[in-house]
Amino acid sequence: MKKNVPFTLEQAKEWRTRFGTPFYVYDEKAIRNAVKSLQKAFSWNRGFTECFAVKATPTPAIIRLLASLGCGTDCASISEVVMSRACGLDGRKMMFTSNETSFKAYRTAVAAKAIINLDDITQIEVLERSCGIPDTVCLRYNPGSFSMTSQIMGNQKDTKFGMTYDQLIKAYVTLQEKGVKHFGIHCMAASCCLDDGYYPKLANMLFKIVVELRKLGINIEIVDLGGGIGIPYRPSEKPVDIHAIGEGVRMEYESILAPQGIKVAIYTELGRWITGPAGYLVASVHGRKDTYKRYVGLDASACDLMRPAMYGAYHHMTVLGKENEEPAGNFDVVGGLCENNDKFAIDRALPRTNYGDIIVIHDAGAHGRSMGYNYNGLPRCGELLLTENGQVKLIRRSESLDDLFATFDVDEDFNYQI
Amino acid sequence: MKKNVPFTLEQAKEWRTRFGTPFYVYDEKAIRNAVKSLQKAFSWNRGFTECFAVKATPTPAIIRLLASLGCGTDCASISEVVMSRACGLDGRKMMFTSNETSFKAYRTAVAAKAIINLDDITQIEVLERSCGIPDTVCLRYNPGSFSMTSQIMGNQKDTKFGMTYDQLIKAYVTLQEKGVKHFGIHCMAASCCLDDGYYPKLANMLFKIVVELRKLGINIEIVDLGGGIGIPYRPSEKPVDIHAIGEGVRMEYESILAPQGIKVAIYTELGRWITGPAGYLVASVHGRKDTYKRYVGLDASACDLMRPAMYGAYHHMTVLGKENEEPAGNFDVVGGLCENNDKFAIDRALPRTNYGDIIVIHDAGAHGRSMGYNYNGLPRCGELLLTENGQVKLIRRSESLDDLFATFDVDEDFNYQI
Repeated sequence: MKKNVPFTLEQAKEWRTRFGTPFYVYDEKAIRNAVKSLQKAFSWNRGFTECFAVKATPTPAIIRLLASLGCGTDCASISEVVMSRACGLDGRKMMFTSNETSFKAYRTAVAAKAIINLDDITQIEVLERSCGIPDTVCLRYNPGSFSMTSQIMGNQKDTKFGMTYDQLIKAYVTLQEKGVKHFGIHCMAASCCLDDGYYPKLANMLFKIVVELRKLGINIEIVDLGGGIGIPYRPSEKPVDIHAIGEGVRMEYESILAPQGIKVAIYTELGRWITGPAGYLVASVHGRKDTYKRYVGLDASACDLMRPAMYGAYHHMTVLGKENEEPAGNFDVVGGLCENNDKFAIDRALPRTNYGDIIVIHDAGAHGRSMGYNYNGLPRCGELLLTENGQVKLIRRSESLDDLFATFDVDEDFNYQI
Repeated sequence: MKKNVPFTLEQAKEWRTRFGTPFYVYDEKAIRNAVKSLQKAFSWNRGFTECFAVKATPTPAIIRLLASLGCGTDCASISEVVMSRACGLDGRKMMFTSNETSFKAYRTAVAAKAIINLDDITQIEVLERSCGIPDTVCLRYNPGSFSMTSQIMGNQKDTKFGMTYDQLIKAYVTLQEKGVKHFGIHCMAASCCLDDGYYPKLANMLFKIVVELRKLGINIEIVDLGGGIGIPYRPSEKPVDIHAIGEGVRMEYESILAPQGIKVAIYTELGRWITGPAGYLVASVHGRKDTYKRYVGLDASACDLMRPAMYGAYHHMTVLGKENEEPAGNFDVVGGLCENNDKFAIDRALPRTNYGDIIVIHDAGAHGRSMGYNYNGLPRCGELLLTENGQVKLIRRSESLDDLFATFDVDEDFNYQI
């Protein structure tokens, strides 16, 4: 089965000439379409806000594009807050969802008027000591167990995030006593889930808590469903139906909240679902090797895309211009790291490749470049934006030796020549 | 069981005041001692050279220290070659062991007169086209299967490195025809192996090939045993006996090579074994959390040390100043990433900790800082050298926001304020 590529071999070759491979390229049109369909699916909800999970694709041009479409951001660190502000975001357009948070991080987020999403009840004191408690606070709930009929979720009792029900209630009461006026509730009970029922089921659980809290005089204004909606990495998988998901949440809203006269704004923190399928890692074939297995070597490595090495993740591949050729066998597609897990694919059926062939690695737009490292002293690659008019723009350059050596500037004896 | 820490709580607190946590600190004395015992173990071999695997600890101050002790480097990339040269190394003190290698990387390594270690027979042509074939070439052998009685090795048929026996012989013959005068052979068939018999067994295999090649008129001058010698990450594990290892290799040398009148220089490419136990990641306790499990939160994360997240690796921990306290229970020791694998330890018995306690993570000196990433927009931490006279020196600073955003300088619309 195939996956489509929104550019041609000729375009990719031209970009390679201009920028060199490997590089990421993001399809602006795909990002716009994803955001529009999400917003349409939740258009019934006044105040609906997608706070894009910056960690998925922390690149200013992407964040600005999303901001121009009405999205906010979900930030986990100082740098993500700084980047979001530089992209014009603040206040209710910014969630700050962190854990093991420093005083400085809270101060930075509060200065940006971000909605602070506390991971644990002990964080109330940390927040208070760092900069005082703001008007608006969100709390992260961990339900302990959360199962779907069609899919097994990770056991939430093994995740470090969020607080128990009893802690949650106690934290709301404490914060109300401390003068907090506006409350949110947040929960993320899945990762890369392809079940349309996930958000509705999560909403059902959270809406019921909202009703309970109302009885205590605590008015939840924001229900943040977090991220967790997946994408079909394998061509055999089906994408979720975002409209059905929005309708499913609406049914829960109308059956649980509406009868109580409660109104909340739904927040989502999708990252992968928006930019994942819109991003491609483009690499050149550097070599073929036949030993005990058959290998195709790329000029990209786990330094550019770590998901296969870290998670054993599947990423589909297209050999540009050879989409209709029969497979010539099964190949391990590898990078150049001196580390045996540097394999983009194991036993992948591919057509015969030659030096210089261009391989497109699909669904790399989220948690791709952002999870790159510099192992073996390799630079991480740059990023291009394929705009709606078919032009490309360099939105992040590849790393240079100067970048790799920047933190050695404290070492007076280190003088290198490139 | 305990592991010793070569500095006191008072020292660590002083360093925290000066540099902030987290940071790495390397014990110069331990590095010196390791190198000396290695060199002594192989002092019977004229030409013995330890080419330190730069990827383990790619920091100029460490490389210079090793160079001052007579070590060379094993490089895998352009930046590692540039760093090694800046630390005064070149020629036979530098191995270049890469795979999926670019023309530019070969040119850089050949310009440094490094010994090129070819990963595959197809690389002869790539090397020739990039800059011609140098006088000296080493070849990397993959034996396919390699088992030890006491320990199961990874199946070498599943590793992407090296060439088969037939390819190896063919490659030597081809290179001799192309005028190569000096040859080496390299093999690495284990990773983090604690069996004293590994190097001797590997040497046995390679020495026999050296004898076979001699019959073809090919004189191997360097036998590179690669890395692969492990360290006891767990206090219950026993360190290898480097003297016994050296003697084991000598016995193979005397029984296989000496009778043929063949002399070779033994090379090793130890990284982990030298700097691993000498390096400590020092972090502060940021918080405690009790939900479905009990957590200790640190200001370090997988961004600083990825081995537990990527490999499930064990790293021992010491709560400084509480070495003699009884455990208060089992805790997950976690970093602040919004990523559930960001756990330095799971269910680790630890004494009761408080905010600000200093936790030392052991055996982090190799593949620690070098495998750091910037996920969630977090900066990677700096590095200190604890010199023999008990002083510390900052040898790498922590990353700043400017570092994190450096590659966005192509984006004219991105203007951030710190």
